[in-house]
Amino acid sequence: MSSPSVSSQRDLLVETGARLFHERGYSATGVRQVAAAADVPLGSFTNHFRSKERFALVVLDHYVARLDTIMRVTLGDTSRPPARRLEAYFDAIESALNERDWGVGCLIPDLATEASIHTEPLRGALAKVLEQQTAAFAAVLNDIVETDGVDDVAAVVLAAWHGTLLRMKVERSGEPVARFRRVLRRLLSA
Amino acid sequence: MSSPSVSSQRDLLVETGARLFHERGYSATGVRQVAAAADVPLGSFTNHFRSKERFALVVLDHYVARLDTIMRVTLGDTSRPPARRLEAYFDAIESALNERDWGVGCLIPDLATEASIHTEPLRGALAKVLEQQTAAFAAVLNDIVETDGVDDVAAVVLAAWHGTLLRMKVERSGEPVARFRRVLRRLLSA
Repeated sequence: MSSPSVSSQRDLLVETGARLFHERGYSATGVRQVAAAADVPLGSFTNHFRSKERFALVVLDHYVARLDTIMRVTLGDTSRPPARRLEAYFDAIESALNERDWGVGCLIPDLATEASIHTEPLRGALAKVLEQQTAAFAAVLNDIVETDGVDDVAAVVLAAWHGTLLRMKVERSGEPVARFRRVLRRLLSA
Repeated sequence: MSSPSVSSQRDLLVETGARLFHERGYSATGVRQVAAAADVPLGSFTNHFRSKERFALVVLDHYVARLDTIMRVTLGDTSRPPARRLEAYFDAIESALNERDWGVGCLIPDLATEASIHTEPLRGALAKVLEQQTAAFAAVLNDIVETDGVDDVAAVVLAAWHGTLLRMKVERSGEPVARFRRVLRRLLSA
């Protein structure tokens, strides 16, 4: 029988893993360290996850599911004008960031940094997430501007956002996010 | 007497450190690992560098000095029209990238990812590098467009470039760089 405490131990491990991957990166985070930081026995980790890599895939899935929900209720809200949908997405992320430490950043660029040492499944999962997020941005941009190359622009907006989140970590301030949003607002109103 | 082999051991350690920080990140790279990968005795490392953090500062300085040289001969070449200076900078970086593995990326976003665990000197050094590079971009953009908020735009162009280099690592291809350059070219000709 799956007791509530067992499923909450799994959730705890996933939350803790996300935090450690954010802070220290993938390769510097050990399975023992995750279990210890989550205050969960190592045996529980090995019951739930076959390997560190399988664990990282679950952490990424879990993180992306939350981002997908935010994207759906913002970018996907066709009751608003398209430029407002994009603003709403960054509003939602910005308020989530405001509640946390500036040092936390976003798991996607954080994991991407170590892409050269990831095995194929994790690298492939990251590539797919980046592709899906680009497509979500492109769908909104397509409703805003009628031009060729919207996919290129969407990829660059996403890249600018990820670079902004890295700079936020370095500066330990929300100013890089404010700058990004000022520039985006000007581009959208041009 | 400082023999050539001693100074070449130091250079070897710095080159190797840059590669390992790129691939595995800062916290996953140990001092012993750097010495072993450089095929240099650990004692040589400790002779040259007081700590891993001091070492990382030297690696970053060395890397930034090379970027500065590229910036000076491209962004700083006032014999060319300003938009061409910016193109020349990315041309130079792109050809350097073409000679390497796509997984290598750029040390600045790579180190920025772990900013939350860096001690103050390394975090401060990274913040300063980002500020200087933003100023170098802003100087060129100021010659291209007459508008307010050029510093904001310069910061977002730099962020987009760093996000692009992360995606290059994930996709293991030069396509993200090609996309970034297409978008930049359109913005500059608009």
